[in-house]
Amino acid sequence: MIYTHKVHYYETDKMGITHHSNYIRWMEEARVAYLDSIDLSYAKLEESGIISPVTSIECNYKKTSTFDDVISIKVYVTEFKGVKLKLKYEMTNEDGEVCVIATSMHCFLNAEGSLINIRKEYPDIYDILSNEVERQ
Amino acid sequence: MIYTHKVHYYETDKMGITHHSNYIRWMEEARVAYLDSIDLSYAKLEESGIISPVTSIECNYKKTSTFDDVISIKVYVTEFKGVKLKLKYEMTNEDGEVCVIATSMHCFLNAEGSLINIRKEYPDIYDILSNEVERQ
Amino acid sequence: MIYTHKVHYYETDKMGITHHSNYIRWMEEARVAYLDSIDLSYAKLEESGIISPVTSIECNYKKTSTFDDVISIKVYVTEFKGVKLKLKYEMTNEDGEVCVIATSMHCFLNAEGSLINIRKEYPDIYDILSNEVERQ
Amino acid sequence: MIYTHKVHYYETDKMGITHHSNYIRWMEEARVAYLDSIDLSYAKLEESGIISPVTSIECNYKKTSTFDDVISIKVYVTEFKGVKLKLKYEMTNEDGEVCVIATSMHCFLNAEGSLINIRKEYPDIYDILSNEVERQ
Repeated sequence: MIYTHKVHYYETDKMGITHHSNYIRWMEEARVAYLDSIDLSYAKLEESGIISPVTSIECNYKKTSTFDDVISIKVYVTEFKGVKLKLKYEMTNEDGEVCVIATSMHCFLNAEGSLINIRKEYPDIYDILSNEVERQ
Repeated sequence: MIYTHKVHYYETDKMGITHHSNYIRWMEEARVAYLDSIDLSYAKLEESGIISPVTSIECNYKKTSTFDDVISIKVYVTEFKGVKLKLKYEMTNEDGEVCVIATSMHCFLNAEGSLINIRKEYPDIYDILSNEVERQ
Repeated sequence: MIYTHKVHYYETDKMGITHHSNYIRWMEEARVAYLDSIDLSYAKLEESGIISPVTSIECNYKKTSTFDDVISIKVYVTEFKGVKLKLKYEMTNEDGEVCVIATSMHCFLNAEGSLINIRKEYPDIYDILSNEVERQ
Repeated sequence: MIYTHKVHYYETDKMGITHHSNYIRWMEEARVAYLDSIDLSYAKLEESGIISPVTSIECNYKKTSTFDDVISIKVYVTEFKGVKLKLKYEMTNEDGEVCVIATSMHCFLNAEGSLINIRKEYPDIYDILSNEVERQ
């Protein structure tokens, strides 16, 4: 999926560029839209009693962006066997230049905060995410 | 009470100054510290089953600030009769110049989200806040 | 103009609702889109050597919003005679309920930071903004 | 150096915890305070015509935090030979539990945006940062 984000004025800093922390937020925006697109919305997950926190982030800054730039974010699953979910994000500017390459890792918790194995406990969700890995 | 906030790099924008939205956040920082100082912490209010949302904000920007500036925020109660709470904030820089004058208005809700009259339902809290008005 | 903003997860707070400071940022988003729509983009203003800082904000919170809500922001000019610009913002949720009513006031500065009178110094810009007041 | 940050209400999200993007901002806060403490403030670097952007971030989330928690951030240099600077951050809560382990990588640019070798062009700054690596 390609998600787009237009850089807001309040996302720039006194260097005149997008503050690096905002890309972490755009990863979340792209992830939410992506999960919606495969019918696994945050709302649906929460209704199923699942929360999926971020356990790690890696973010490589290749090129700066600034106010009014339109950033395209390609987001996809790179790893999933039922316990950990890894997503990759490729952000490019309007000239097709790569600005940021990033990954996020997630686990799945039930309402009590215990780690769950999606393959065992939610086979439907497991199938959706597994298919996404194969599509790459 | 005087609360101080040192401006963070990520709070600046491409004009080279503190983005105006951050002063609204510092008002909250100052308010939290102030309520702590009069023994009415957010935690204590929430334990009593009270939440106190912001119902309105007014913020007048007099002078800009930027990265590394230390802003002193004087915060105090200007109005309280039991239902609405009004706080005022005076923000000055290290040279004593006024940067921002602001007010926030708050109400009080119980766990069901209904408006409550603090004077009737929480006389202890009423006394603390009333005393604060008189101290001005 | 109607600008829409879908509430991001990172814009919510532990009360489960949109943190009130974010509406101030959405006002800027709506203002940027609105000025673009009348051919007065920030970029164009800056090329003309004009910056237009916020001098005051008023924001009345009527109804909360939360993650994934789509907020429609109607933005328009309410006052402009050449020196001060006043904009109004009406934010409604998907059910047409009013969430926030707000205003922002702006002045115009040249590159040296001195206040300018748009009517005298930039008659073209003056005409555009004056027409906007009359359209209301 | 140990930098402390008290979690603000606006830094929490609807999960009731600190939103993960804020730790990236606290890394910057800790870095600024650390560079100040070794007499290499951002202001001093900028006066020397040097900017030092973030080129990558890694952040591992071990334990959540929330409003009012006091987070201690130990920050130190782990790599520096003149071109790239690597910093490490260990964030612990009031019980001494590790919340976040993170690293940031930085380069150095001159006013024209060209990569510079600090060892060759700024031997004084090179000495300060090299000493910091050895102190570990």
